[in-house]
Amino acid sequence: MAKKEPKQLKDLFEDALKDIYFAEKKILVALPKMAKAAQNEQLKAAFEKHEAETEEQVGRLEKVFKLMGKDAKGKNCPAIVGIIDEGKEIMDEYKDSPALDAGLVSAAQSVEHYEICRYGTLCAWADELGMDEAKELLAQTLSEEENTDQALSELATAVVNQEAQRQAAE
Amino acid sequence: MAKKEPKQLKDLFEDALKDIYFAEKKILVALPKMAKAAQNEQLKAAFEKHEAETEEQVGRLEKVFKLMGKDAKGKNCPAIVGIIDEGKEIMDEYKDSPALDAGLVSAAQSVEHYEICRYGTLCAWADELGMDEAKELLAQTLSEEENTDQALSELATAVVNQEAQRQAAE
Repeated sequence: MAKKEPKQLKDLFEDALKDIYFAEKKILVALPKMAKAAQNEQLKAAFEKHEAETEEQVGRLEKVFKLMGKDAKGKNCPAIVGIIDEGKEIMDEYKDSPALDAGLVSAAQSVEHYEICRYGTLCAWADELGMDEAKELLAQTLSEEENTDQALSELATAVVNQEAQRQAAE
Repeated sequence: MAKKEPKQLKDLFEDALKDIYFAEKKILVALPKMAKAAQNEQLKAAFEKHEAETEEQVGRLEKVFKLMGKDAKGKNCPAIVGIIDEGKEIMDEYKDSPALDAGLVSAAQSVEHYEICRYGTLCAWADELGMDEAKELLAQTLSEEENTDQALSELATAVVNQEAQRQAAE
């Protein structure tokens, strides 16, 4: 517990918390742009719904920081920066294309999978560290991210991918 | 089908194929470094096993390019670059720390989730495009990635996270 001891699981937990806090803030900036770009109304609505959820998720992370007696603080997260850059590339390269929405879904699912992975890890570490209340908050967000990913898969298969093909055939 | 038509689902499929081909090659470079850094022998073995699988996955992607009558070619993938950079940060910051292996697992799972997402999308698009043979190859890799992610979760919960805590208490 001394200050000079090597970094421990609780430090890793705190670093990962800062990483996902930074990521959620970036996602909050990206989602309205994706909603604006989406051609299909259902996809637009899905992005808008997830934006509202993301705001609550940021609030939950702030609660976890508080439970740890720490100030909520982000830490540069190169992964989310890269994932969001890839989404921007798709928005540029597929602008006005029949495949734009299919590309937007794939970009959004990369974001979701990153979050599913991070929240899954944070839940496992909170469990190991005996941080029950934190784990409950994180598990709530994990479940929302999994539902969002599932909803995007369904929308892609049932509507968006078919529309891309239909428009291409016109 | 004309050259000047806007980009279509098949173009998106090809772009995503190039993206994951680039990503798999980067992962092939990262995995031996992660295996070398891992303290736990089971984790080391898991990374080595996945390296061998990744080589086969690269081969499958080359087969998909061939089915499309294209040369296998990568496309810069900022997402995997960011995800791997985050893994490098953990290797540096947690070197000689009891939490290093737990951090390595989390980094590897970010990679797995990126791949799960991309291969899932590629399978859905191959399906929409009627590319049955390609879909079969991609689904085989998707299943391997899901198994690797599951194995890493189990190893983390059963061994690695507990070791991080035990060593921290010593």
